[in-house]
Amino acid sequence: MAKDKIRRPRAETPKGFRDYFGAEVTARAAMLRRIAEVYHRYGFEALETSGVETVEALGKFLPDVDRPNEGVFAWQEDAEGDRPGDWLALRYDLTAPLARVYAQHRNDLPTPYRRYAMGPVWRNEKPGPGRFRQFYQCDADTVGAPSVAADAEICAMLADTLEAVGIARGDYVVRVNNRKVLNGVMEVAGVLDPSDPEKFTRERGIVLRAIDKLDRLGTDGVRMLLGEGRKDDSGDFTQGAGLQPAQAEVVMGFMEARRDTAGETLARLRELVGGSAIGAEGVDELETIAALLEAQGMGPDRVVIDPSVVRGLGYYTGPVFEAELTFEILDEKGRPRQFGSVAGGGRYDDLVKRFTGQAVPATGVSIGVDRLLAALAAKGRGATEAQGPVVVTVMDRDRMADYQAMASELRAAGIRAEVYLGNPKNFGNQMKYADRRGSPVAVIEGGDEKDRGVVQIKDLILGAQIAKNATLEEWKDRPSQVEVPRAELVERVRAMIEGQSS
Amino acid sequence: MAKDKIRRPRAETPKGFRDYFGAEVTARAAMLRRIAEVYHRYGFEALETSGVETVEALGKFLPDVDRPNEGVFAWQEDAEGDRPGDWLALRYDLTAPLARVYAQHRNDLPTPYRRYAMGPVWRNEKPGPGRFRQFYQCDADTVGAPSVAADAEICAMLADTLEAVGIARGDYVVRVNNRKVLNGVMEVAGVLDPSDPEKFTRERGIVLRAIDKLDRLGTDGVRMLLGEGRKDDSGDFTQGAGLQPAQAEVVMGFMEARRDTAGETLARLRELVGGSAIGAEGVDELETIAALLEAQGMGPDRVVIDPSVVRGLGYYTGPVFEAELTFEILDEKGRPRQFGSVAGGGRYDDLVKRFTGQAVPATGVSIGVDRLLAALAAKGRGATEAQGPVVVTVMDRDRMADYQAMASELRAAGIRAEVYLGNPKNFGNQMKYADRRGSPVAVIEGGDEKDRGVVQIKDLILGAQIAKNATLEEWKDRPSQVEVPRAELVERVRAMIEGQSS
Repeated sequence: MAKDKIRRPRAETPKGFRDYFGAEVTARAAMLRRIAEVYHRYGFEALETSGVETVEALGKFLPDVDRPNEGVFAWQEDAEGDRPGDWLALRYDLTAPLARVYAQHRNDLPTPYRRYAMGPVWRNEKPGPGRFRQFYQCDADTVGAPSVAADAEICAMLADTLEAVGIARGDYVVRVNNRKVLNGVMEVAGVLDPSDPEKFTRERGIVLRAIDKLDRLGTDGVRMLLGEGRKDDSGDFTQGAGLQPAQAEVVMGFMEARRDTAGETLARLRELVGGSAIGAEGVDELETIAALLEAQGMGPDRVVIDPSVVRGLGYYTGPVFEAELTFEILDEKGRPRQFGSVAGGGRYDDLVKRFTGQAVPATGVSIGVDRLLAALAAKGRGATEAQGPVVVTVMDRDRMADYQAMASELRAAGIRAEVYLGNPKNFGNQMKYADRRGSPVAVIEGGDEKDRGVVQIKDLILGAQIAKNATLEEWKDRPSQVEVPRAELVERVRAMIEGQSS
Repeated sequence: MAKDKIRRPRAETPKGFRDYFGAEVTARAAMLRRIAEVYHRYGFEALETSGVETVEALGKFLPDVDRPNEGVFAWQEDAEGDRPGDWLALRYDLTAPLARVYAQHRNDLPTPYRRYAMGPVWRNEKPGPGRFRQFYQCDADTVGAPSVAADAEICAMLADTLEAVGIARGDYVVRVNNRKVLNGVMEVAGVLDPSDPEKFTRERGIVLRAIDKLDRLGTDGVRMLLGEGRKDDSGDFTQGAGLQPAQAEVVMGFMEARRDTAGETLARLRELVGGSAIGAEGVDELETIAALLEAQGMGPDRVVIDPSVVRGLGYYTGPVFEAELTFEILDEKGRPRQFGSVAGGGRYDDLVKRFTGQAVPATGVSIGVDRLLAALAAKGRGATEAQGPVVVTVMDRDRMADYQAMASELRAAGIRAEVYLGNPKNFGNQMKYADRRGSPVAVIEGGDEKDRGVVQIKDLILGAQIAKNATLEEWKDRPSQVEVPRAELVERVRAMIEGQSS
């Protein structure tokens, strides 16, 4: 007889999405909490917008792609009568919603408005290894402050934040640069023609993205991208900015302008920008930032002026910054490499203008929380799996009330505890369950124990060590299990747990 | 000359969505943290799924509506070659994703699997006052435990959770019932015909939803919905379940079966279910739950058996429960009313079966976090606006470094502080800003103070009180402002803030 095949739904996340379990969730929550504490101490206020915005408000495209709607999850609402439905989309970052919020609520918000936001964002991109279509961002921005003191403050806050989440001083550096200096250098060297703004913007975009790849491609690779272009290992060709070799050298010289001290670097940059007004303004701003950071005790062990930082995004207009972890980790192939960037940001002055017509100065930073968690894990300072609960086993299924009372007493004393709720018939399964749960202690009370007013408490951590190391003879003594008076259950379990961590 | 009108995007959230600012965000985060602590102590593990699921995995419909896709935000992915794109949707609750996760990862998860989840969910519904299309849910579920001990545990945890977030004992009650008892009553009374399962399910749905409206419509309203139907004040007619008056009375009798003690209520229910096997099973389960709760010290001041609780959703199969706040608040029109339900849940045994073909028992609870926050606010125990930062004012814009150093020292001592980053020209604007930020203290250092090695610190809380109450003469004395040595800045600001809260 032919069976009717029932078509069952696939139990799968959509491609590029994933689930997070237990300590993955709580470690991230703890990190976000620590970051929020620092942001709060700096005077920033929390803001939480919804995941959904109108496509119109989001601006129809990601800052780093060119085609409308590319990279965004979007859908059209149902029409209402003759009125076509709005297009809605999931936010792709936390900056576009901030621009919308500031434009919408500007009369009710303080100026400047310092806000932080943390939450998931969505990108409709091709997923890859370690690259997901939903991920967390954690941003802080100051809107309405034209002074570079706002940028300096964010750099200082970023350094303090990294230390607050467990990155030791010396294991990170915040690198600061200024787009105006780069513009000045290009102006002086005649690299790009500012008289055709559209062409200038497009070609400058190629230059920025080329410089941004210095870490990955090295100077030769960047030089090719500044010139005709570059063919990668797979044979794919990336169009270059079309600079003449001499012009490319000017840009390379800018990237390599970092000297031993901030003063020397600034002096070198002043040489490079020559008579460019915009370039001189950029160097002045960097000088102010350096002085402000120095006044706050942020020396070169924490924040440095580094002209090789440009950030790929087109919308930055002044200072840009990036936090890099400086320690080495092993890559997939076991080779040591620098961990690299975990946060970045800069000044962008035009995002609110889209809505109101008025330019509003803004500057901000975005921390890659998932990368930062990965970094701490790589340093062995990640969240260790949280301890499992004490498991009260079920020897007699008619006495569930007794077992629940034990778990309840343990919890009231602040000890994580649960009663085994699977099928209690097979005691071995209960022990396997406790093992899978990472339980420190199992509690056992059969009819005999009940009659005698005692319970057995079993040290599962010690038990596992004995099982691994001891001979069968030793194991038979089962020193890891002790009988205690029922009335002493809580204190004896607590003592056993405390003994495990000592 | 005609002006070209530039079409600017509207700075608005989509209809039915909203932004949350400052203390609204932090109060919710603090509540979720407290809830998570209780869940964790009961042995539940965190799970975070993504906001996006396949429509296939979600099951194409909300549990309480009948048409596919209704109530859900959904879109189709781009096709890949000949393969049409998957339909994706935003999750509408946290239970459907749990079913998918359990089916997908069941071999790696412990059985039973206790998990909690908290986060936003999305409903594509008509928004209304206080009714948004994105809102938070906070769920705990136990999957794979057939015993009603799992239900009892969740009821106990719910009571503990409410107390942990600040609802005093006596201000809430967790009410428990069992769908099997209702089924038994209907079977005995011949109310619905179980031989036609589809008709039975549909009509039982109407009965459940009618009973669920008891609070709002009273007994007469429910009686109409059990019979032919009911016209509401606006003239809209709701189709009834079509029960004969005598049959409706049986159902009404069940709803009103609650007696003074659990024992008496259970005895009354036994009478009502008569010879129905399913009904007797339901009463037995309630009896077990009552005993287990009693053993954990959960008396009738915290959890009660109440046959009027049915929960509207069709998918519950056994115990159902609801947490209600029992204190009165004033409604929009100033009339006292009970605050009502803030959490609910029950046993549902078929959600995982969709994926695997095997029925997996599950039970869980969902807490309405936003309603709970509103309840605490109504009781005057909500989050008070968090204190603003100390504002270091800018008297001399060339000395930003000095001001940043002060803010930095204050922060290093754990005091929330910021430098004024707006245009410093008008000092009055700086004071207005500090007022808007809810600042406790302003720090002022002009050139004269700088020369003398002092700063002015201004008590803005006291200042505001004086401005409100004192005569002009008193105000001129400005006792709220004191001059202190620069070296004592941190300790004197701290003392001033501590004085404010005492």
